[in-house]
Amino acid sequence: MNVLIVFAHPEPRSLNTALRDIAVEELRAQGDTVRVSDLHAMGWKPTVDRADFPTLPPDHRLQVAPASAQAFAAGALTDDVRAEQEKLLWADVLILQFPLWWFSMPAILKGWVDRVYAYGFGYGVGEHSDRRWGDRYGDGRLAGKRAMLIVTTGGWAEHYSPRGINGPIDDLLFPINHGILHYPGYDVLPPFVAYRVDRLDDEGFGTVAEALRVRMRSLHTTAPIPFRRQNGGDYVIPTLELREDLARPGLTGFALHRSEAEG
Amino acid sequence: MNVLIVFAHPEPRSLNTALRDIAVEELRAQGDTVRVSDLHAMGWKPTVDRADFPTLPPDHRLQVAPASAQAFAAGALTDDVRAEQEKLLWADVLILQFPLWWFSMPAILKGWVDRVYAYGFGYGVGEHSDRRWGDRYGDGRLAGKRAMLIVTTGGWAEHYSPRGINGPIDDLLFPINHGILHYPGYDVLPPFVAYRVDRLDDEGFGTVAEALRVRMRSLHTTAPIPFRRQNGGDYVIPTLELREDLARPGLTGFALHRSEAEG
Repeated sequence: MNVLIVFAHPEPRSLNTALRDIAVEELRAQGDTVRVSDLHAMGWKPTVDRADFPTLPPDHRLQVAPASAQAFAAGALTDDVRAEQEKLLWADVLILQFPLWWFSMPAILKGWVDRVYAYGFGYGVGEHSDRRWGDRYGDGRLAGKRAMLIVTTGGWAEHYSPRGINGPIDDLLFPINHGILHYPGYDVLPPFVAYRVDRLDDEGFGTVAEALRVRMRSLHTTAPIPFRRQNGGDYVIPTLELREDLARPGLTGFALHRSEAEG
Repeated sequence: MNVLIVFAHPEPRSLNTALRDIAVEELRAQGDTVRVSDLHAMGWKPTVDRADFPTLPPDHRLQVAPASAQAFAAGALTDDVRAEQEKLLWADVLILQFPLWWFSMPAILKGWVDRVYAYGFGYGVGEHSDRRWGDRYGDGRLAGKRAMLIVTTGGWAEHYSPRGINGPIDDLLFPINHGILHYPGYDVLPPFVAYRVDRLDDEGFGTVAEALRVRMRSLHTTAPIPFRRQNGGDYVIPTLELREDLARPGLTGFALHRSEAEG
């Protein structure tokens, strides 16, 4: 199988790099073909601006969605963006790896999403009508593929636990897992999260590395997070609210959007 | 009062720019002093890399938190970052304004947070001991000040409602409101969110503009979101889990961290 790792850490001698190399090595050992987009090494441009839409006339106002739609349809997106889109179409599995900075991804990786997920590629796909609101949340251009996050944090696991002050890690990652990965169609695997990485000694690193190897060995078999499909009948169209008869009474928030939330 | 607006949209003729100008005008009309950091116009560098830490020896591994701590303590952060820190200290109120892209801020604004919130400024502040886990979540260098978000979305309000498919807007913004604004001490006001902005006609724009003016007029008096203070006794130190006797039974997720969640 083909695996793409999009990697966002500025230091080649970092713990993140070491973990990335372990993942690559383990995947290759089991016969996968692996490509890495090392965003810092590539000098990735994070900012969406006019330069992304070379066919936009200079006197036209930049409206990002229409400009993106037009450039994608015309094959006129910039080379760096088209190369990443081709990698996404090539890969059976996408892995995003990053240190959690301010409870989300570093800017360089957010800018990869903002630019690579063009209108017509990452969003704006499929029929929009009274009975279908686009191909998204389970459908979409990347449907049938798998994706997962590899994340490191300085904070303790307890701080990200169900009652921890930072908020539960699954909720903090929901905008990425559901909003960025499930949205264009991916089956999203539970994330791999390594906590307190600033204090890891050799033994601690060995434990994390082995846990990561185990996850890489089960990459093609691990059960995905059971996010609901938008077009599977669970949501009312066009308000896209979860049907009133679904999910346990009293349940609120992101957990509603997992099919295991039934009463 | 002094108000800083950090603004992240690439197009000077955008709806976002029009709303920003309305906010500035309304604030000045009521006697506030307003400064704007227009990140695209400033050519803001979003990516954290070695260039941010001029005193880091070239052969040293870049560890972001220690490098940031050292550069901040030595007054050696880059001029662009120090200028933004000075604006934050000057401002009584911080407003972050952006279009919601992929359920979070655009990369350029995330990169403003990643770089301006240095160790010793945005985090790593205060005593870390058995009885206190730093000055954060209500305490910190920016305590006593107010902050709020102005956000635009293409999606419908219903899609961001309590049972909407995107997830509730308050939960999607929690990593920013709680993790980026409350963390260094801000009192965080409810966000101003304008939905379906791609389809706004003149009348719709007028309605949004007037609602924004109302919010600007109450900027100094609106009650903040009642996020709990980390060091106010609600959390067990050092695991920083919410005390078992707090919050209604069955309540889960981000809502736990609001003091109105009592049983």
